Formats: sequence, C-alpha cells, structure tokens
Amino acid sequence: MTFDEGAIIHHIRARFPGGADLHDDCGLLPEPLVGERLLVTTDVMESGQHFRLDWHPPRLLGRKLLAVNLSDLDASGARPLGFTLTLALGREVGADWILELLEGLAEGAEAAGIPVLGGDTVGRAEGVGLGVTAYGTAARWLRRDHVRPGDRLYVDQPLGASLRGLRKLQAGQRWDPAQPDPDLAAHLDPRPHLGLGRRLADLREVHACIDLSDGLSRDLRMLAEASGVSVRLASDLAEDELRGGEDYARCFASDAAQADLEARLGLGLRCVGQALERGSAPLLYDGGQGLRPLPDLSFDHFAPEVR
Amino acid sequence: MTFDEGAIIHHIRARFPGGADLHDDCGLLPEPLVGERLLVTTDVMESGQHFRLDWHPPRLLGRKLLAVNLSDLDASGARPLGFTLTLALGREVGADWILELLEGLAEGAEAAGIPVLGGDTVGRAEGVGLGVTAYGTAARWLRRDHVRPGDRLYVDQPLGASLRGLRKLQAGQRWDPAQPDPDLAAHLDPRPHLGLGRRLADLREVHACIDLSDGLSRDLRMLAEASGVSVRLASDLAEDELRGGEDYARCFASDAAQADLEARLGLGLRCVGQALERGSAPLLYDGGQGLRPLPDLSFDHFAPEVR
Repeated sequence: MTFDEGAIIHHIRARFPGGADLHDDCGLLPEPLVGERLLVTTDVMESGQHFRLDWHPPRLLGRKLLAVNLSDLDASGARPLGFTLTLALGREVGADWILELLEGLAEGAEAAGIPVLGGDTVGRAEGVGLGVTAYGTAARWLRRDHVRPGDRLYVDQPLGASLRGLRKLQAGQRWDPAQPDPDLAAHLDPRPHLGLGRRLADLREVHACIDLSDGLSRDLRMLAEASGVSVRLASDLAEDELRGGEDYARCFASDAAQADLEARLGLGLRCVGQALERGSAPLLYDGGQGLRPLPDLSFDHFAPEVR
Repeated sequence: MTFDEGAIIHHIRARFPGGADLHDDCGLLPEPLVGERLLVTTDVMESGQHFRLDWHPPRLLGRKLLAVNLSDLDASGARPLGFTLTLALGREVGADWILELLEGLAEGAEAAGIPVLGGDTVGRAEGVGLGVTAYGTAARWLRRDHVRPGDRLYVDQPLGASLRGLRKLQAGQRWDPAQPDPDLAAHLDPRPHLGLGRRLADLREVHACIDLSDGLSRDLRMLAEASGVSVRLASDLAEDELRGGEDYARCFASDAAQADLEARLGLGLRCVGQALERGSAPLLYDGGQGLRPLPDLSFDHFAPEVR
C-alpha cells in the first residue's frame, strides 16, 4: 500500500464534514437537546464475512457502512449526530480503493448532515475490517421490549431483495452502474428509510421498533423475546422474506389501524404478524400444515464461510 | 470456533458492568454533568500488527485494549463514563482465549467503574481485530494545541520500558506470571496513571497534554505542530526514550515550576523539553553535535511487518 496512515487522515480531514476538527486524542460529542437522550450503535464489517472485495464497489461499501449504523439509530427513534470510524486495511487494497471507500462514506455523511468525530486507521496483513460507531439523539427511545399482545407488526419496505441480490452475486452476476439491478442495489447499496423511525417515535400508538438486518426469523424473534410475547407471522410471507437478511426495513409494533398509520405516515405498510400472549415459542407460522414454531432461518453472520 | 456470537454476548451480559442492559439496536450514553463535555476516543488493535497471539496472554490483552483508550481520555482531562466493544475473531482463537480476553476487559471495566454500552461481534477467516470506543466527561478539555513558548514539557513516568519489553519478546523471552519482568509488563499490561490527566486539567498552569503512545519523537511533534511552536528536547534523553512507543505516559506543557507541580501532584516528574517560538523544525535535539532537527524515530503502526 502506497497510501499511508498520514495520507488517509489528511484526506479525511479535507473531505469529511467535521474532519477539520480531528486533531486530538479525543473528539467532542455533540450535545443533545434538553429532554433528549444520546444513543450509540456500532457495527463492524469484515471482508470475506460481510462483503467481498471483488464484488463490492468500494464507494457503495462506504455508503453501506454508514447506512447500516444510521439504520440502527433511526429504528431507535434517534436523529443522527455524528460518527467515529475505524479502518483496518490489508495490503491487498491500494490508494484508489481506499479513496473510493472514503468517498462513499463522505457522501453518506453529507447526505445525513453529520460530522466525523474521530477514528483510528491501522494496517493488517490481509483482509479489511471497517468499523463505524454512530451517535444520535432521541426524544423518545423506541426500543424492542415494549410490544404488547394484540399489536400488529408492520414493515415499511419489501423484504428479501438483498438476499436475492446476494444470490445473484454468488451466481456470478456483477454490479453494472450503467444497468443497475434493483436486487444487487438492495444488497450492495441499501437505502433504508432514514427519518421514518424518528417519525414513528412521535406516535404514541407505536410501541416498539427494530431494524431488520438479520432477517425476520431472527429479528422478530429478538423483538418477541425482549417483549415477552409470541408473534404469529402472516401466512403470506414467503421463505425468502422470512429468511431475509440485510433488509434494513423498520419493523414496528402498533395497536393503531393499518389505514390510519399509512395515512399519517404517507406510505404503504405491510403487516407481517401479530403479537399474542407469550406461548410455547417466540415465533409461530402457518406454512400450510397448521401453526408451528418457526426456527431461526437467518444467515449466520458468525459462520466462517464467505457469504 | 465452538463459541458463537450468542454465547459471547451472553457472557458479556453476565460478566460486564452494564452488560445486563445490552438488548437493543442502540445503547444509551451516560449524561455528562452540567458544564462538562462529552469526549470520545477509539482504538483498534490488530493481531500481527499491534500484538501477537503467541506472545500476548489474552487476559493482559483485554486489559490493555481498555487501558489504551482510557489513557487517551485521561490525557484529555476526562473521567471515563463507558465504552463500546467490537470483536472480529478469526478461527484460530477458541472459547478459552475469548473468555480470557473478556475477563481482562471486564477487570479493566470494573477497575475503572465503567459500563459496557454496546458492541458488535463478528467472525472472520483469520486474525483478530479488537476495537474499543470509550466515552468520558471533562470539565476542561485538555488539548494538544495550547502549548505556549516558554512552557516546559513534563512526563509522569519512565519512557522506553515498553520498547525494551517488545525487544525482549522479539528476542524470544516470554511472559512468566510467576516472575513478571517489568519491561514485558510495560508492553503487555500497561498501567497508565489514569486520573492524573483530570487532575492536570484542574491546574490552570497546565496548558496542553498528550498521551504518549507513538513515542516522544512523534507525539511531541504532533503537540508542537498543533500548537505552532518548536520544542527543544532535553539533551539527557536516550534514543530509546525518544523512539519509545506505547509508553502511555501523560506528557504535558506548563509554565509552573517543576518543584511546585511535583508538590501539588504528589509525584515526581521529568522535564523532557521546552517550547520555543516556532523555528525551522517542530523538534530540536542536541545529540552532541549541536542543535539539530529530530526526525520521527517512531515505530510505524501502519507498516505491514509484525512488530
């Protein structure tokens, strides 16, 4: 690598909102407004595990790295305030790759209107590890553990597109910016409805929310377990929709009528299930053979195989 | 690896201060007192680059990971409030190694009295990447950029021990807990004077402070450049002391007399230089052939070689 730590920091200072303030052992976190709370979330993406260097254009990867963290903040009802960044860069990535990654990250930061607050850049023998820790401020912290029996569960966008995109990549299809495939775009360059979570937090009839990143069969399980309820899943969900992964939809629980929610939010929703008093399993699904417990179908992020 | 993400999170919840609160997309940052500011710092340690799996007992590594971040906060005048943690774990580390690492981290968190606020655990093919992002609150943010011409620069502990420890490891010596070698301890299990930075921030006669992690020849250069001064280094500094690396001393600038500072702080200090009006180079050193610019002698964290 011809692009050293000093050059990377110099570029971040010049190109990122807030970069000019990076000159100390520590960075300053922005202050929340009075009555708001400061939330934090962190995600690491490892090459070979969460992305492949030969599949993922670095500019899209940089945008995705920030988007997945902002999606977590948003699903908690928070407005983003800033982020810190860690880069662990193996010898196989050169200056062009790093500059494109930083360009995607800077685009994401500009679109969200948030500064970089600090970071750390290190080398490693091979592979790439990318980390973002993002901060936001919430008037109401929309958590996982307040689903009430009787609530319906809604999602704000179609499920399964990212999984289809991954399968297309595994089958040999590659990203072509001249002819962007929507499934590949969902996987490589996700665009969660940022801002929707904060609007949901303003509605008292919305009781809980989660960011769908591991797939409905795992994320809804965590929601049900945290809230001490069971969820009966809608019977029209296809297996890919249950399995999912990296959907980055907001999934929320509410006792308001669907039409009322859609009118107030100005967007279409899909009902993916209904909460019941806690039963024999967190998730129940009728796949045609009667109501059965649904196992965790999701991709295991911790598996050593390249996804 | 037989120890999966769920088992690691379960262990963190049970063993770490604040772990029981880890159950959402986001964690809650503690609030600073009125009139204080919230600071953030982040460090990544990569196997093969910042530590070697075959040299570094995982319990000591866990303590060090937290200590290096708390050292940065302390040198900025902050009291620690909490941290987030990211683990990227290759297949070569098993459950025992991971449990020992977490034990060292939990010991460090308990000693500092701070909770874990969130995190992310992922797998990777090989190697280990460890990340901590730590938060603190400061009544006065002690920065790098306020050194004044005439200030003397002091350090609170001997320099070069960690570098000697690294050389002993490179020469084949290994950590023996029954006969702990002080140089190996300085490298593998650093114990910075946490709390001293916050006391320095209370002294108006202390103008700037930096955590010595890259060695005096690089860290003092950054201090001098940020403050727009030159620093004439003490002529009694040996090359290992100038080169250093991972000393984790507080290095601060003050116009108070050394004896007065020592009496007020209750500890011995060493004067490592004096700030001058900005001259031809940030660092000047008389190694016996007259005053010359001192080059950056430090270890390059970004070099691909195993240190």
